[in-house]
Amino acid sequence: MIYFDNASTTKISQLGLDTYQDISLNCFFNCSSLHKGGVKASKHLEWARTTILNCINGAFNDTLIFCSGATEANNMALWGLIKKGARVLTSVGEHPSVYNTAKALNADIEVDYVPLNEFGQVDIECYKEMWNKNNYDFVSIMYVNNETGAINDVGQLCDIAKSKNSACIFHSDCVQAFGKIDVQVDNLGVDSISISAHKINGPKGIGVLYVKNGLRFKPNIYGGGQEKGLRSGTENLPAIVAFAKVAEDKCANMKSNYQKVKDIKNKIIEIFDASNFEYKINGSNPYSPYILSVSLKGVKGEVLLHKLEMDDILVGTGSACSSKSSDNRILSAMGDTKEQIMGNIRLSFCPENTVDEATVVANKIIEYTNYLRSL
Amino acid sequence: MIYFDNASTTKISQLGLDTYQDISLNCFFNCSSLHKGGVKASKHLEWARTTILNCINGAFNDTLIFCSGATEANNMALWGLIKKGARVLTSVGEHPSVYNTAKALNADIEVDYVPLNEFGQVDIECYKEMWNKNNYDFVSIMYVNNETGAINDVGQLCDIAKSKNSACIFHSDCVQAFGKIDVQVDNLGVDSISISAHKINGPKGIGVLYVKNGLRFKPNIYGGGQEKGLRSGTENLPAIVAFAKVAEDKCANMKSNYQKVKDIKNKIIEIFDASNFEYKINGSNPYSPYILSVSLKGVKGEVLLHKLEMDDILVGTGSACSSKSSDNRILSAMGDTKEQIMGNIRLSFCPENTVDEATVVANKIIEYTNYLRSL
Repeated sequence: MIYFDNASTTKISQLGLDTYQDISLNCFFNCSSLHKGGVKASKHLEWARTTILNCINGAFNDTLIFCSGATEANNMALWGLIKKGARVLTSVGEHPSVYNTAKALNADIEVDYVPLNEFGQVDIECYKEMWNKNNYDFVSIMYVNNETGAINDVGQLCDIAKSKNSACIFHSDCVQAFGKIDVQVDNLGVDSISISAHKINGPKGIGVLYVKNGLRFKPNIYGGGQEKGLRSGTENLPAIVAFAKVAEDKCANMKSNYQKVKDIKNKIIEIFDASNFEYKINGSNPYSPYILSVSLKGVKGEVLLHKLEMDDILVGTGSACSSKSSDNRILSAMGDTKEQIMGNIRLSFCPENTVDEATVVANKIIEYTNYLRSL
Repeated sequence: MIYFDNASTTKISQLGLDTYQDISLNCFFNCSSLHKGGVKASKHLEWARTTILNCINGAFNDTLIFCSGATEANNMALWGLIKKGARVLTSVGEHPSVYNTAKALNADIEVDYVPLNEFGQVDIECYKEMWNKNNYDFVSIMYVNNETGAINDVGQLCDIAKSKNSACIFHSDCVQAFGKIDVQVDNLGVDSISISAHKINGPKGIGVLYVKNGLRFKPNIYGGGQEKGLRSGTENLPAIVAFAKVAEDKCANMKSNYQKVKDIKNKIIEIFDASNFEYKINGSNPYSPYILSVSLKGVKGEVLLHKLEMDDILVGTGSACSSKSSDNRILSAMGDTKEQIMGNIRLSFCPENTVDEATVVANKIIEYTNYLRSL
């Protein structure tokens, strides 16, 4: 099997699974228990917290909240950090866990959506213009788009926001960035970020909301007061420690992994180009090599996906989260035509993929696309 | 090590861990992906859903929502099912994930708390009286108390509620009941229940909210529209399938497991009684054999806990969720004195515990209690 749907979810690494199993068997205790098992579990929990905080260069007194995943983390950020009557700015390119949550906020909260440019980034001129017209209390802009890989200059966007309103809270969904490109909260200047384990070969069902020290935060889930009362529920320690172990590994090997997936992406483009093959890349200038979104004229992406799966090649169409809806908000926002949207597939990589796999997949895509176009 | 803190959390069973590992390696796909990996993952997801629905005798068109645990499930029930301006009835004996969430509900929602009797059950006469005085739109009463094991007659409490207000929604936190005593939603007549995997030797970080067909439900977490839009976020499939496998096993072996832990509990009481040992059981008439809460006069529970852990015997004081606060809401509500509360330890069992372990622990408790009393 060739798995090129890693932006959707990844296979857990051996390191991740071994850690999960080790903690499950040897430190299965409740972190709140007073006995030595609970104390040992708490130590693992705090080791994981510090490890991930170090990965993002957070300060020792910043808050890092473990939760069930980035969808919950984004919900926590929006429900927890946006105050009554606030004015919110986000983008039309956000993941549904930000976009749909913004839509669901209370009626007294006004939300504006900054458009994307043709390369998939938040349109910076529009962003400035919106800031000139309005004063925003909360901004949520993702780092790397999950459908196209387009990278937003979060540091610049945050600088602009803070220069207009120093009290503005800036949140960034960093799910497709963390462990892949450098995410340093201090350099970016952001107030909160969300990250997820299962996008970087960690376990499913675990994510993190980072919140800068001193920010007032209203919990979304109440109960036994875990995570300093900010997110109750017995800690999923095996997944938390596995997340930290995998994150540490990904951050240590970020550069070499980046080069690996860049070679994979480049190989596909090289083969496409060498074949006089008609295709359009969605998202560029700059974009993450972990994702390659292409539109193939005259072809239905879903049909191509099913042709490829017959050869045990698994790819995506748009994001898995929106794969079951017929429209595509992100590609529409980039100005793609209906035909381009219909003909879209998303290839997404992890460092365990190989250039040989890229060669096979690129040639198969050309073969099946030419066949489908000839019908 | 003798682990008698199973009400806090359990060690995952080999079945649970093997299943987690199998799905992690062989079906790690995103259930929303359109390719055959996603289709296979969706089938596992629906198998798990049907399996757990069968365990609780739910109808095929009832809703079963996977989430990160019972704390989230209880929050979902309260935030999602209680309407604006509703009047709510719950008990002072509820788990913090119900009790503290009820406290956090919007100001326009009035919440009443029914007291407990001296045995730890919701006081049924008070409950009736409160219903005579008020009309409640939502009731939340737990099945088995997590600190004392006291069992509420949820079927009767639900009948009373429905007879007073047929539109009343009845929720029950069934975390300490599920897989241990029979939880049949149709017999109980309840509208929603919460259950958790990690209390029955399943994985941590996974729970279920059951909601009866036809009930309108407002989500607490928005995003990609998973779980029919009721709980977004990539499904934690390895944990979900492991939960279902463990639940199936626990429900199939419920009677024999019940007898095993009953023998353990009875052995401890038998040894206490044979030694002319002064102790008080908190919670009885009826109560679950999985939990044994005792108060030991003249002893600090926490000191005894630390004495026992020196012999690798791990027990709890109250619930892990409230172990770090000095007061005890549940025992206070049952009329325990401050001294009884201070001298409380909670022993909680799983079917893998043995009568031999019970013998060791009972004798150690007597020995250390007598020693501490002699000081």
